[in-house]
Amino acid sequence: MLEVNEYFDGKVKSIALQTETLPATVGVMSPGEYEFGTSQKEVMTVVSGALTIRFPGTEEWKTFKQGEQFELDANVKFGVKVEIETAYFCTYE
Amino acid sequence: MLEVNEYFDGKVKSIALQTETLPATVGVMSPGEYEFGTSQKEVMTVVSGALTIRFPGTEEWKTFKQGEQFELDANVKFGVKVEIETAYFCTYE
Repeated sequence: MLEVNEYFDGKVKSIALQTETLPATVGVMSPGEYEFGTSQKEVMTVVSGALTIRFPGTEEWKTFKQGEQFELDANVKFGVKVEIETAYFCTYE
Repeated sequence: MLEVNEYFDGKVKSIALQTETLPATVGVMSPGEYEFGTSQKEVMTVVSGALTIRFPGTEEWKTFKQGEQFELDANVKFGVKVEIETAYFCTYE
């Protein structure tokens, strides 16, 4: 059965899946500002919209748009700003 | 609030969003064979995995893989075969 997860009072929702090689989620983030933590290495792709990311240990924000991808190490915290409802795909290694 | 929909006893789940221009969903299909109907024109992109589609009025099946896209007219039925859990993004016009 496909598992749906909710975060931040339902402002972020995702559906888990198993790809050919890795566990993954697809999800949607509502407009807002969030801090997420990783437990595994994550590779995140923006499917629609844009995510503005503050990478661990930095103060700068960088925006990733539809089709763009970024990586996060395991066991880090990172900031996300979202201006329009944004769909993402994330794999976990 | 982000709306989650389920189809085919939860074997297909999706999250609705509003993109900059169009309503859309991201979702996951479990392995199986399905028949869907459209009420609007749909443009579907395979985010991960593969969807094998029987277009309206045809008997042939055609497979679309990660990054590939196909369109469906409004008010048609189409067949979908899925072999591994597959993530998709769909816009409605």
